[in-house]
Amino acid sequence: MKKAAVVGGTGYAALELIRILENHPFLELTTVISQSEEGNDIAERYPHLHTIRTDSFKNMEAAAACDVIFLAAPAGVASKLIPALSASKSQIIDLSGDLRLEDSETYEKWYGLEPPDKAMQQQAVYGLPEVNRESIRGAKLLSNPGCFATAAILGMYPAVKQQLIEPGTIMMDGKTGVSGAGRKMSMMTHFSETNENIKAYRTGAHQHVPEIEEHLGKAAGIKTPVYLQTHLMPMTRGIMVTSYGRLACSATELQDAYKTAYEHEPFTRYRISGPMPQTKDVYGSSYCDIGVFADERSGTLMTVAVIDNLMKGAAGQAVQNCNIMNDWPEHSGLQMVPQYP
Amino acid sequence: MKKAAVVGGTGYAALELIRILENHPFLELTTVISQSEEGNDIAERYPHLHTIRTDSFKNMEAAAACDVIFLAAPAGVASKLIPALSASKSQIIDLSGDLRLEDSETYEKWYGLEPPDKAMQQQAVYGLPEVNRESIRGAKLLSNPGCFATAAILGMYPAVKQQLIEPGTIMMDGKTGVSGAGRKMSMMTHFSETNENIKAYRTGAHQHVPEIEEHLGKAAGIKTPVYLQTHLMPMTRGIMVTSYGRLACSATELQDAYKTAYEHEPFTRYRISGPMPQTKDVYGSSYCDIGVFADERSGTLMTVAVIDNLMKGAAGQAVQNCNIMNDWPEHSGLQMVPQYP
Amino acid sequence: MKKAAVVGGTGYAALELIRILENHPFLELTTVISQSEEGNDIAERYPHLHTIRTDSFKNMEAAAACDVIFLAAPAGVASKLIPALSASKSQIIDLSGDLRLEDSETYEKWYGLEPPDKAMQQQAVYGLPEVNRESIRGAKLLSNPGCFATAAILGMYPAVKQQLIEPGTIMMDGKTGVSGAGRKMSMMTHFSETNENIKAYRTGAHQHVPEIEEHLGKAAGIKTPVYLQTHLMPMTRGIMVTSYGRLACSATELQDAYKTAYEHEPFTRYRISGPMPQTKDVYGSSYCDIGVFADERSGTLMTVAVIDNLMKGAAGQAVQNCNIMNDWPEHSGLQMVPQYP
Amino acid sequence: MKKAAVVGGTGYAALELIRILENHPFLELTTVISQSEEGNDIAERYPHLHTIRTDSFKNMEAAAACDVIFLAAPAGVASKLIPALSASKSQIIDLSGDLRLEDSETYEKWYGLEPPDKAMQQQAVYGLPEVNRESIRGAKLLSNPGCFATAAILGMYPAVKQQLIEPGTIMMDGKTGVSGAGRKMSMMTHFSETNENIKAYRTGAHQHVPEIEEHLGKAAGIKTPVYLQTHLMPMTRGIMVTSYGRLACSATELQDAYKTAYEHEPFTRYRISGPMPQTKDVYGSSYCDIGVFADERSGTLMTVAVIDNLMKGAAGQAVQNCNIMNDWPEHSGLQMVPQYP
Repeated sequence: MKKAAVVGGTGYAALELIRILENHPFLELTTVISQSEEGNDIAERYPHLHTIRTDSFKNMEAAAACDVIFLAAPAGVASKLIPALSASKSQIIDLSGDLRLEDSETYEKWYGLEPPDKAMQQQAVYGLPEVNRESIRGAKLLSNPGCFATAAILGMYPAVKQQLIEPGTIMMDGKTGVSGAGRKMSMMTHFSETNENIKAYRTGAHQHVPEIEEHLGKAAGIKTPVYLQTHLMPMTRGIMVTSYGRLACSATELQDAYKTAYEHEPFTRYRISGPMPQTKDVYGSSYCDIGVFADERSGTLMTVAVIDNLMKGAAGQAVQNCNIMNDWPEHSGLQMVPQYP
Repeated sequence: MKKAAVVGGTGYAALELIRILENHPFLELTTVISQSEEGNDIAERYPHLHTIRTDSFKNMEAAAACDVIFLAAPAGVASKLIPALSASKSQIIDLSGDLRLEDSETYEKWYGLEPPDKAMQQQAVYGLPEVNRESIRGAKLLSNPGCFATAAILGMYPAVKQQLIEPGTIMMDGKTGVSGAGRKMSMMTHFSETNENIKAYRTGAHQHVPEIEEHLGKAAGIKTPVYLQTHLMPMTRGIMVTSYGRLACSATELQDAYKTAYEHEPFTRYRISGPMPQTKDVYGSSYCDIGVFADERSGTLMTVAVIDNLMKGAAGQAVQNCNIMNDWPEHSGLQMVPQYP
Repeated sequence: MKKAAVVGGTGYAALELIRILENHPFLELTTVISQSEEGNDIAERYPHLHTIRTDSFKNMEAAAACDVIFLAAPAGVASKLIPALSASKSQIIDLSGDLRLEDSETYEKWYGLEPPDKAMQQQAVYGLPEVNRESIRGAKLLSNPGCFATAAILGMYPAVKQQLIEPGTIMMDGKTGVSGAGRKMSMMTHFSETNENIKAYRTGAHQHVPEIEEHLGKAAGIKTPVYLQTHLMPMTRGIMVTSYGRLACSATELQDAYKTAYEHEPFTRYRISGPMPQTKDVYGSSYCDIGVFADERSGTLMTVAVIDNLMKGAAGQAVQNCNIMNDWPEHSGLQMVPQYP
Repeated sequence: MKKAAVVGGTGYAALELIRILENHPFLELTTVISQSEEGNDIAERYPHLHTIRTDSFKNMEAAAACDVIFLAAPAGVASKLIPALSASKSQIIDLSGDLRLEDSETYEKWYGLEPPDKAMQQQAVYGLPEVNRESIRGAKLLSNPGCFATAAILGMYPAVKQQLIEPGTIMMDGKTGVSGAGRKMSMMTHFSETNENIKAYRTGAHQHVPEIEEHLGKAAGIKTPVYLQTHLMPMTRGIMVTSYGRLACSATELQDAYKTAYEHEPFTRYRISGPMPQTKDVYGSSYCDIGVFADERSGTLMTVAVIDNLMKGAAGQAVQNCNIMNDWPEHSGLQMVPQYP
């Protein structure tokens, strides 16, 4: 058993890492780190962990003894923690957005934060196994993709790569559950404002846009601008990205493209016929389900990609990446069946 | 006071008509008709109407004595009821989809039903006041628009009319609360299947697509195909249509187009700046709120239109049309403030 | 038209007062007061009021010119505002809990705040029309009941008054929507923590307990301790209080007691048979619906009382009290039909 | 590996059994039986099982080859299937209510169905491990407790057994998510009727009442009538039973009673202090969390017990019983951490 630490232990991604790692066959979560809660009993803070976690929150120094460190800290904070950790031989998996963009100016523009050290960014491997599994294998510093970006890229990259869509016509409609905004309180996460309501937000300004453009471009070998409008849904978990573009292929070519891309993938499931995916189909699991449709009548290509934003969109993908980095079976710790209903 | 009847009195649109008409200054709801519930006490069936409605459900014959008849029956049923009613001098307002399409084949293809009589269809006036108020004034038989169609057309018609968008590039992402599916039971309206879930449905086949294409085309004077993907949301009320297309104008032209179209409208509110509309902004009211955005970076035009599907999307718009047909102030009975939160 | 002011204009009770007063036949809402938002456009802060309110938030000084002042400020704040206002001839209706308890020590114990001035408390009339309509008529300073207290007292007072229940055996199970906690952010009102979850809270400590005991005792003429356990529900609006006690009567006596108490009430609806009330039956309206049941098998009396916490539990009852204070028809401004579904 | 069959494979309890058994170390789910879906692909019917179940629904004959048969069929149906199965050496675990009551008349009265064969009922062991683990060990035919009954009995039995409550004063307020009603369509499970709504239902008539009285009585050694009022909550999963009674002990005695009863239990967690349990604390897991409170002021004892109705209230408890019957570690297959949020 290797030893793992989770940093930022009071957020939802950290809770999900705890949920996964309690049943991981090769990795033991020995250390949950939270600067603000140091010394406090984990189960007192999170009663659902009563009798499961009997330890307390630790400080950053405890991370050094671990083989794998999951950074579940916010953007702007995570990258500042890395230099001190890099001295150790630990593998570092960063769930924040800090290391996902190669261009510092782009980071600064979309995040509104000072960009991280350029060398650190370049060392980090972007961890979307479906598109760059091989480069993940050797990684020591891994940048875990964003939740919208994961669904957006997986939904569209086979079509873009095979040139089945007109470049420059991609419009993405993103729909997310509220847990994507984390535990931080805001009017947008206030129950009475969000329940029985849907809301378009961060128009023209979502920080996953440049991530999608950069990594969809790399994956497909074709650069294309993307418009993403994000919407907040009255539910806790789940992301759906419905993507649209001008159709430049037949239905058969479309199906072939997705089959080629995903037929051997352990977590990305492509269904050729039947109803379009719904977020409940992947609830609590690390699957990404994708449906595609070619509307010849209007000349439109449409894809629907769904994930659990805390699993394939965060903690689940982080563990999948960790498994690849350590040459463990890729599904280790991730074999939970989607919870339905 | 004129007298009104509601036919199909057990459905949600009928309940909403009852809610509105109880406080209408010129129209008294004397007759609630339901063939299946004839003779039963209304308040026993719907306890929320206890002490408000003390009468019982009537049969179709009771309609003849009324000045205005609201048909809240399903597509395929409504048009069969009209011939018998037309003999009277009553004004008829049909909330079903039966009379919205001028082409019988199109109706048959998208509804999967035998098309209504051609002459009846031609007599019916499509009732979207923002685009054809004058022709509504003289109407005796009115076809009330569909819920998705109302939001879709109002959201995009100023941009299409002013040629601010490339024809043939319009993609619409529709999101609806579950009440749009009515009281009829189905797995899609089953709580456990729909709560904490979002789902794309009726891909390439929603019957509001030809309605949008026909009436958006008429309103704007430009024919354009439209792709609409509808999604079911875990909420009861509210529709949002997020529309996308290739931008062919400046932000200023866009604002001018919406200002010109809507600045004097009593129920369509266009906000130039600030956050995009959310469905809660119009909850329980007959407003349609619209936000527009020109993303020059990606060359995308995006609009968001929200309505309460049972109000501006059904009963509220039916009463607005009725007010116009009778030369009453257009807001009569419709001055409820949106309920927030 | 008399002129009204709402103080504390950014909270949910204030929004609901605005919703009601926009359509009140005798009262015009001229002044919305918020110290923190003074000078800001109301509709910019609350887009659902766009085109409805074109004025801005005012400061406290603007209240003096009004005939009726609704205080929708938090407990501890409201009573501090009253002395300055009392100089004017305005009627004051306080929606906070500050003036509901006659005993200062009890207030201090349950609210954890310094008690308000004793003379002011004694001048205030508790405004629950169903039990003390006559004393409300002459009131100049009115204390509007709490949301749980309204449902709890209305649900049980006929049974207690007619001695149909064993004193000292009353246990109340309160269930509330999240809007009862207001717009203030907290983990309890965070969507992801509250959605798809029910939670017992403030065990043995809810500040409405002494209010229920005092005013149920006064209404019934019998003092009885009450246990109330409150629970948070994953919904925005609505309160249900399910009350239990040892049965000391027949089913007929029970029905008679409720009939006597409520048959002429405009807003409290008592249904003798059929399904128990649900919160949706009163949604958006000022009704209180009550169902009663005598379980002879186990010797239990059970009542269910439902209200919309923002209406009969706050703003609606405040306006009902205001109507009584001014000798207007009691339902003025309150004739909205419950919104269903 | 032993082989398992699930009968009634299209319902929610069956889906939950599938979710658990996919990761059970000693039991392989070889056979999913549904008469109505025989021959159909499981994953086509339930897309969330795509790539997980590649087999099809079987008919009843396939059960005979299995070592353990889980009957997830409705009351009235399940007991009719048992005689044919009893010929085999299979262990049978019945999740329906058919075999829970020893008295046929009581069954007939509360279920409104013909009672099952008396001998079969007497052979069946009621499977609530916390109160009768030893008799479960030898069982060949096991009757799995009801969802409300599980939470109700576990919440109150230590208090009743230790005589810390006055007999005859127990009132239970049950709150359930909608999945407890299964996949069968009804107005009560219709989204638009249930969302943003709470509703008291089956007043004086819930079929778990006699089950609670019988098995709480046996567990505690004291017979006591119980009143249970059930309420439907706008959520999918989770049951809370808040129980009330006249206090006849000190807070210390209360704590001792629960500690004695539960300190070594693997799935029933008793927390002495801190916030009361919420349903989210056990979401997706087989835990039952209990909080107790002695209100000396009003002389009330209150307990709160929460479970996931599909886990500890159905499939999870069935697997726990199966583990005991087979002398496997009791938590086998059940070590999932509650999913939060």
